[in-house]
Amino acid sequence: MRKMTSIIQSSCSNFFFEYETPRQVLVRNRRVAVVCRIIQLGVLSYIIGWVFMYEKGYQAVDTAISSVFTKMKGVSYTNISEVERIWDVADYVFPEQGDSSFVVMTNYISTVGQKQDTCPELPDGKNKNKCTSDADCDEGKYKRHMTGKCVTNTSTCEIFSWCPVEDDRQIPDPPILQTAENYTLFIKNSITFRQFKVVRSNLVESVDQNYINSCLYHPTTDPLCPIFRLGDIVERSGLNFSDIARVGGAIGVLVDWDCNLDLSIRHCKPNYEFHGLYGTGKNDKVEKPSLGYNFRFAKYYVENNVEKRTLMKVFGVRIDIIVHGRAGKFDIIPTLMAIGSGVGIFGVATVVCDLLLLYLLPKRDFYKSMKFKHTEVQDEKPALPPSQKEKELPKE
Amino acid sequence: MRKMTSIIQSSCSNFFFEYETPRQVLVRNRRVAVVCRIIQLGVLSYIIGWVFMYEKGYQAVDTAISSVFTKMKGVSYTNISEVERIWDVADYVFPEQGDSSFVVMTNYISTVGQKQDTCPELPDGKNKNKCTSDADCDEGKYKRHMTGKCVTNTSTCEIFSWCPVEDDRQIPDPPILQTAENYTLFIKNSITFRQFKVVRSNLVESVDQNYINSCLYHPTTDPLCPIFRLGDIVERSGLNFSDIARVGGAIGVLVDWDCNLDLSIRHCKPNYEFHGLYGTGKNDKVEKPSLGYNFRFAKYYVENNVEKRTLMKVFGVRIDIIVHGRAGKFDIIPTLMAIGSGVGIFGVATVVCDLLLLYLLPKRDFYKSMKFKHTEVQDEKPALPPSQKEKELPKE
Amino acid sequence: MRKMTSIIQSSCSNFFFEYETPRQVLVRNRRVAVVCRIIQLGVLSYIIGWVFMYEKGYQAVDTAISSVFTKMKGVSYTNISEVERIWDVADYVFPEQGDSSFVVMTNYISTVGQKQDTCPELPDGKNKNKCTSDADCDEGKYKRHMTGKCVTNTSTCEIFSWCPVEDDRQIPDPPILQTAENYTLFIKNSITFRQFKVVRSNLVESVDQNYINSCLYHPTTDPLCPIFRLGDIVERSGLNFSDIARVGGAIGVLVDWDCNLDLSIRHCKPNYEFHGLYGTGKNDKVEKPSLGYNFRFAKYYVENNVEKRTLMKVFGVRIDIIVHGRAGKFDIIPTLMAIGSGVGIFGVATVVCDLLLLYLLPKRDFYKSMKFKHTEVQDEKPALPPSQKEKELPKE
Repeated sequence: MRKMTSIIQSSCSNFFFEYETPRQVLVRNRRVAVVCRIIQLGVLSYIIGWVFMYEKGYQAVDTAISSVFTKMKGVSYTNISEVERIWDVADYVFPEQGDSSFVVMTNYISTVGQKQDTCPELPDGKNKNKCTSDADCDEGKYKRHMTGKCVTNTSTCEIFSWCPVEDDRQIPDPPILQTAENYTLFIKNSITFRQFKVVRSNLVESVDQNYINSCLYHPTTDPLCPIFRLGDIVERSGLNFSDIARVGGAIGVLVDWDCNLDLSIRHCKPNYEFHGLYGTGKNDKVEKPSLGYNFRFAKYYVENNVEKRTLMKVFGVRIDIIVHGRAGKFDIIPTLMAIGSGVGIFGVATVVCDLLLLYLLPKRDFYKSMKFKHTEVQDEKPALPPSQKEKELPKE
Repeated sequence: MRKMTSIIQSSCSNFFFEYETPRQVLVRNRRVAVVCRIIQLGVLSYIIGWVFMYEKGYQAVDTAISSVFTKMKGVSYTNISEVERIWDVADYVFPEQGDSSFVVMTNYISTVGQKQDTCPELPDGKNKNKCTSDADCDEGKYKRHMTGKCVTNTSTCEIFSWCPVEDDRQIPDPPILQTAENYTLFIKNSITFRQFKVVRSNLVESVDQNYINSCLYHPTTDPLCPIFRLGDIVERSGLNFSDIARVGGAIGVLVDWDCNLDLSIRHCKPNYEFHGLYGTGKNDKVEKPSLGYNFRFAKYYVENNVEKRTLMKVFGVRIDIIVHGRAGKFDIIPTLMAIGSGVGIFGVATVVCDLLLLYLLPKRDFYKSMKFKHTEVQDEKPALPPSQKEKELPKE
Repeated sequence: MRKMTSIIQSSCSNFFFEYETPRQVLVRNRRVAVVCRIIQLGVLSYIIGWVFMYEKGYQAVDTAISSVFTKMKGVSYTNISEVERIWDVADYVFPEQGDSSFVVMTNYISTVGQKQDTCPELPDGKNKNKCTSDADCDEGKYKRHMTGKCVTNTSTCEIFSWCPVEDDRQIPDPPILQTAENYTLFIKNSITFRQFKVVRSNLVESVDQNYINSCLYHPTTDPLCPIFRLGDIVERSGLNFSDIARVGGAIGVLVDWDCNLDLSIRHCKPNYEFHGLYGTGKNDKVEKPSLGYNFRFAKYYVENNVEKRTLMKVFGVRIDIIVHGRAGKFDIIPTLMAIGSGVGIFGVATVVCDLLLLYLLPKRDFYKSMKFKHTEVQDEKPALPPSQKEKELPKE
């Protein structure tokens, strides 16, 4: 009876004075033991080595909020049919205000003095838009706005449009602004890891004003210099400058921050990478339709009270500055999450060992008898008589 | 004594030759057993079915870095008070260089020939800015720069400004460039999953140059065609083209990539969605202030040595191309994390079953006696005499 | 034999009718018990308090897709050498269409009437580009395109360029458009949490058209007003408006959404923050090279059949609207993940207690004997004779 009372006591008030721990069988079997210890050590070294050391599972992770400012420098000189011309940054960068995505003009087709007027379409060379009489030129039949007249000397329909129409059947080759490869690009990038209250600029400690005035980015000798030669950018992305300068193309400049904030902030430095975009790069296996990059823009002016424009079809290198920032710092939550999951996997190791012990070893029946105790009662059978129950309890 | 020695041995050198496994009671009770097996099967099927199959918990996940280039095509014809005019892409897209966010002009109020001068303010129609004498027009009183004169014939103050002032009291209706709905938009999108070193373009394998030349996006018949009719985009976002063309509006085109990289890369395809932005969409429950979208820009020119400008108040469809990329690929870490957590939840199942067994069943005392062994000693009591301790050990 | 049969039965068909639960020792030791209960309660309160309450570990998390539209308002008046001029939004915002990143011009150096011509370089004041004879001016020697002539009256080389060359040696001080601090910025921001199908605008329920017409953002009195005074933005980012207006600077306006979607959507509101970018802010510890922000753009025109341009070197406040959206909502997967990990950490608590019990307590040998049962057999030794085995089984 003393025992029964103590049981009742324990279940009620002794919660704080009693501690339960699982009873275990110590199996003296070298084969099982070695296998299990190896499994357990494997799990342990996985958790410590891989999750903690390599993947830094003890760190909370934040991605960066970033802001980019760019500035091109350089001048080009052209001499087209004895007309000399100088191109500076206000002439060849679109848009002008230093966005993270911009275009450097390397080639163009300009159509000077367009005004709203009627003029014949250009023959496309394949006689697709050829006309022989006015009947071929129904008003509104095509995408362009036709007047319904067929112009005899060009054998094409007359249209109402900005005239004269642009002739972009031939792209200038070599590109007009081939010297654009010597332009330089200056990138200012500021990132913020909000969770860790860290603000960081790509002009890190070792990059001061003197260094910026003289340096040029090189992956091994000057990996932190924020000034890039346009030709180098194109080449490092796996493209050929002459090709891209002629028909245009897009390049992604990736500013990659992978910071371990458990170390000094000075080690948090950007890494620059260059990729060809839109299926022109070497990593891409698509069939590469739509090579090139071009757009049209117009400079408007008024001449003798008539609005005119100079239409430019611009081919160029489009640069997209893409910032990818990731920082890790020790934090108790992911640490405990990782440990908790690790303990869970430890449980899997135990299950595997038990299966080995209970189903594969020759002496499995013996181990089973050691590990398991059976309650003899079943729902179908009458329960043990109280007397027997009383007797069994003291045994324990 | 032999036993004692073996214990000491085991605790020191036999770590590798001994394996411990918990002793367990096998409870022959259908009710408990069925409940517990069901709970365990539930947990197991949750882990396998939901975490592994549905949520792909065995995959590491990466979000995409992306780059977008856009190109509009199409021509509009207007005839305003007998002045014919053609609008092409250089006239109606802002900015011109093919950004991921741009505006297609659909309506405008133009004020031609503005120059720096003095002119009377426009009456606002509500007599709010009416003046009767110069005393009502204090210099610097209002936001505009007043000269201090009240102009008799308009009954408004004279201001120094770009004159004549813009009259935007009436928005042209129907919109001037209503035909903009037939313009087409071409989207080039390139995404990179850095973690998996995968580069992908929205011009996937089945989209070749021939297809692009002829196709038009349709959600069911041409879901991969990267060419979109402007009217379709507006309509699919739940808006009415005439409304949006008149006062302007913003639409988000979502390019959604959800890739399973355990399959062939060919199955990694974009999905296009269209949303009205800024509270004009049907999903938004806000009270919709500030409908419409407009901005002003100026074309500057010099006439007779006087700088003049044509001010345009542009209403248009603003398109924001938003890329959302997510890729999953098998990785050992998340797999083991999921398994580890799953084993942990298995532990919860066991706890629930034990509570059932030990507190709810009629024979709970019997099961308790099977499961628990008590150490009789307590700190308050004297420890068991050595003799008794010696006796108890062999029993085990 | 009855027992043996039941074992075979159980292992085959009775899987569903048998339930196993670990046998445990209840240790009556206050010291151990109290320590262990405290550890367990600590783990439990960590899981409930920290993971669930504070970190909301029961929520699935999504980041926002966002779209931003901005609109500046305000007029400036300048009077430079008796030339009056009014600057409105079409004059001072770049780009004009209301992007999330734009520049407000606050100062400029304009060079009117540039044309392609030859003219002498400007002396740099340090005699670095001084020439005494034509020999100092080799064609192509420098970055600019030289004609090879030394101009006597300026003692600098003649270049072919846009002439006259820009003189940016002196930045106007005070800034020409100092009154820009009174401009206002209106921000429209729309965010989408795709996973939860929630669309939200920064014009929340309490921000209606009347409120927008009259309000001005203030962190405490009007935290939701989407209209900001430019001077306030600059000041709140820790910079001085006069400085930034003179040489330019970049400011990030962070629209921060941290939404708990388990509550009403009305509580999902934006929070605005202001940061100086590019190393000019107070939080940044870098050495601040490259202060300031400027870019050049040109307005082209044709005069007497000669293409001319007005070059503007623009200094201004660059505003980057950065949206950071994060929403959490109850989800079964992260809940179970957290619980599973928690149970795993519980296991760690048990291990710690066991170490205490088995290695540190004075009566550790007694507890060991209670917890562990030894299998006497080893691979090297002969197995127990069947008779003994039979005897041991009934004991259990």
